[in-house]
Amino acid sequence: MWSFLLLLYLGSVQCDYKYDTKYFKVPLDHFGFQRNETFNIKYLENDENWDRGSGPIFFYTGNEGQIELFAKHTGFMWEIAPNYRAKIVFAEHRYYGSSMPFGNKSLDNEHIGYLTAAQALADYAKLIDYLQGGALHPRYPVIAFGGSYGGMLAAYFRMKYPHVVVGAIAASAPVHMYPGMVPCDVFSRIVTSSFKIANAKCVENVKHSWPLIRKYVANATTSEWLHKTWKLCDPIKDGKDTDTLIQFLQSMYETLAMVNYPFPSDFLVSLPAQPVRVVCQFLNESLTDEKLLEGIGKVLQTFTNYDGKSSCVDYKKGSDYGNLDASGWDYQACTEMIMPMCTTGKDDMFEPSPWNFTTYSEDCHKKYNVYPRPDSARIEYGGDRLQAASNIVFSNGLLDPWVGGGILNSISKSVTTVVIIDGAHHLDLMPSTQSDPASVQMARSIHRQNIDKWIREFREQWRTKP
Amino acid sequence: MWSFLLLLYLGSVQCDYKYDTKYFKVPLDHFGFQRNETFNIKYLENDENWDRGSGPIFFYTGNEGQIELFAKHTGFMWEIAPNYRAKIVFAEHRYYGSSMPFGNKSLDNEHIGYLTAAQALADYAKLIDYLQGGALHPRYPVIAFGGSYGGMLAAYFRMKYPHVVVGAIAASAPVHMYPGMVPCDVFSRIVTSSFKIANAKCVENVKHSWPLIRKYVANATTSEWLHKTWKLCDPIKDGKDTDTLIQFLQSMYETLAMVNYPFPSDFLVSLPAQPVRVVCQFLNESLTDEKLLEGIGKVLQTFTNYDGKSSCVDYKKGSDYGNLDASGWDYQACTEMIMPMCTTGKDDMFEPSPWNFTTYSEDCHKKYNVYPRPDSARIEYGGDRLQAASNIVFSNGLLDPWVGGGILNSISKSVTTVVIIDGAHHLDLMPSTQSDPASVQMARSIHRQNIDKWIREFREQWRTKP
Repeated sequence: MWSFLLLLYLGSVQCDYKYDTKYFKVPLDHFGFQRNETFNIKYLENDENWDRGSGPIFFYTGNEGQIELFAKHTGFMWEIAPNYRAKIVFAEHRYYGSSMPFGNKSLDNEHIGYLTAAQALADYAKLIDYLQGGALHPRYPVIAFGGSYGGMLAAYFRMKYPHVVVGAIAASAPVHMYPGMVPCDVFSRIVTSSFKIANAKCVENVKHSWPLIRKYVANATTSEWLHKTWKLCDPIKDGKDTDTLIQFLQSMYETLAMVNYPFPSDFLVSLPAQPVRVVCQFLNESLTDEKLLEGIGKVLQTFTNYDGKSSCVDYKKGSDYGNLDASGWDYQACTEMIMPMCTTGKDDMFEPSPWNFTTYSEDCHKKYNVYPRPDSARIEYGGDRLQAASNIVFSNGLLDPWVGGGILNSISKSVTTVVIIDGAHHLDLMPSTQSDPASVQMARSIHRQNIDKWIREFREQWRTKP
Repeated sequence: MWSFLLLLYLGSVQCDYKYDTKYFKVPLDHFGFQRNETFNIKYLENDENWDRGSGPIFFYTGNEGQIELFAKHTGFMWEIAPNYRAKIVFAEHRYYGSSMPFGNKSLDNEHIGYLTAAQALADYAKLIDYLQGGALHPRYPVIAFGGSYGGMLAAYFRMKYPHVVVGAIAASAPVHMYPGMVPCDVFSRIVTSSFKIANAKCVENVKHSWPLIRKYVANATTSEWLHKTWKLCDPIKDGKDTDTLIQFLQSMYETLAMVNYPFPSDFLVSLPAQPVRVVCQFLNESLTDEKLLEGIGKVLQTFTNYDGKSSCVDYKKGSDYGNLDASGWDYQACTEMIMPMCTTGKDDMFEPSPWNFTTYSEDCHKKYNVYPRPDSARIEYGGDRLQAASNIVFSNGLLDPWVGGGILNSISKSVTTVVIIDGAHHLDLMPSTQSDPASVQMARSIHRQNIDKWIREFREQWRTKP
């Protein structure tokens, strides 16, 4: 239905960043001693510009996926590092990429239990202690960067380890998305509004399409017509297929809204610039049933086959495509990262689908033999009560559906926000392009000012220390 | 050799505080999902004076021992609660008292691994969330209090959970005691200086006593004389007995320094006011060998039999006497709470005994099948890099040997210190008495001012919130 991930893997510029790939030993369990295994997490390091005397360390708090992908698409860090004479480090989140505690058995139910944000943050703290040379008094100011779940981690890292990182740039971090904090339909309402901005008719057409699709698949002839017209790899044989198809479509609209960037993107799915506007061109007027479905067929083609490499629409593969390797996320969403999602069909353009924690919980139990702890992330990480933290910038793009769970108003002198009115999901962290709107350029400039300030504070603090 | 504990259990006033004993369910592992057991921690609650509308919660972050004992001897909280219309809560640390995850098997090697500070803090955060009614926006400002290891926990609680507690009074918290942070002999040097303040001759005599004791026990006749003169329960048969006896004596001097209170104390061991001065009266001049040992015999009598109830000196029982129930501490000291201790015989009055991490580590492994992680507490809790935290007061008494690991200089506007020049181990948290020195009265007044400020800040912050 939704994935946190797509986001990072887009960007019009194919940058060829260079780094060394390294490994660092961490305990399986930082917070207990019953299990004393250790394993290696991977990190990518670039020292090219680094002032080894006192240069800062720019540290990306890896999220759910192979860290190379984040390194590739977080152009902001690479672009500003030379000026700061900074070391760049991208740390891979445990249980993703190659940072597997139990090799290819890591995601088995008997091994996956140490996949939590707290353990990942403790990995990062230990790695930074090593990068500081284990010194009692740190030499190098460390700035945390992260987008999406990685942005949550960056913010939480500063909150929980203020002695380790001097500040955090938390881009598009939905820290309010926990149960009871925002309405569960906020995400789908923002998706809808992104489409409405492109074209109001577009939303109406999508809304009308659902009963139409259900009607068409219920009849063998029209179902076959849909199969052919939409170039689906598989026919729609039963109710389950129908639900899968509808879920695929909804996920498509959500993804289009998230990656509604001003430049063509080419990672997971190849897409034109401003993809929402592009696809809405097929749905920008009142259409008869068949024409409407044909229009949606064109949206599907744009989404799945913009580069012309795909022979059919594989609606059954879900949203876990490409080399994301994010299978652990589903477990995290089933344990501590509970983010209720629903659609009402009223303020959004989707079929109604309520949030039911009991069902959700039972599904998780079936899959992983665990029950979610719905309050645990809020209690551990403070929900929206981050006043007492400091030196965190929460940036959010208003086109991004995740903004619904973001912090938009500065909550203290040093927990501040940047709103990017025409930005999608953490556009500010991506490589800069010619087509960047002024708002994201401004956001990056504010980030640099904050980074300056944090580094200055650090140097003032430690100047007189042994 | 040393115990963190003795401290809390002293106080001249037998106060009869009233509370309800309650239990609260917590997960065995807050930071992982491999083990999904839950268990109950105990807490003591008094609502008598509480303003249920918006009164503060005074929350004692329980340390290594039965929580009732801490409730009994933390008079400061009880004395100020009525004025603040505060609820009082004393939370018991997991694996101590009745807060046992696996009943009487909890301390077995296969169950003890979830005994860590981080897990205990997460227990407290969850309990406070419950006391706040699970509300997203907290109604009640919560102040953390703790002494000794409990003081470390109070400080770390504010640092790690600034959204849960508005401030922390951390009394006699040796947060610098971790490897590499302070010299390992700092504790024994301060013990020695406490004795020197009482009487310089006293220190010389103790220093001279060690070779004398070893000489006396090497000969059957003089050994028997020592056994009788010192009223030892057991004769000193061999080298192991000798070491045990010497360790008992060293621990006695350390304890006397820690609890060198201005009032008679009567908990673990019944002692007169200013016990160091009292015992040094027996050692206040140059003495011949036999007279010196007789003098130490009198110190032993004062320490073990001030109330006249003990028929002999049980030097073999170690320092784990009374109903402390602190057996878990040894495990914590073997896992994350590594605090190097040594004596040199030069700047202290003890036999030289170097700190050897390898030996220490191997001993821990033998006992618990774990190796210590010497850097883990420093990395997790910041060592002395607490600038970025806020609203913490570190109070320390200069007579207390633990002051050697304490923070004595305010490190920011809101991480401040109170030095109690003539205070022993967290005297400021104890019930007030007529014999309290002005310095501790002043410390308590500063505590109240800080508590006022934190509560005011909290109310200003949340006044305008929904």
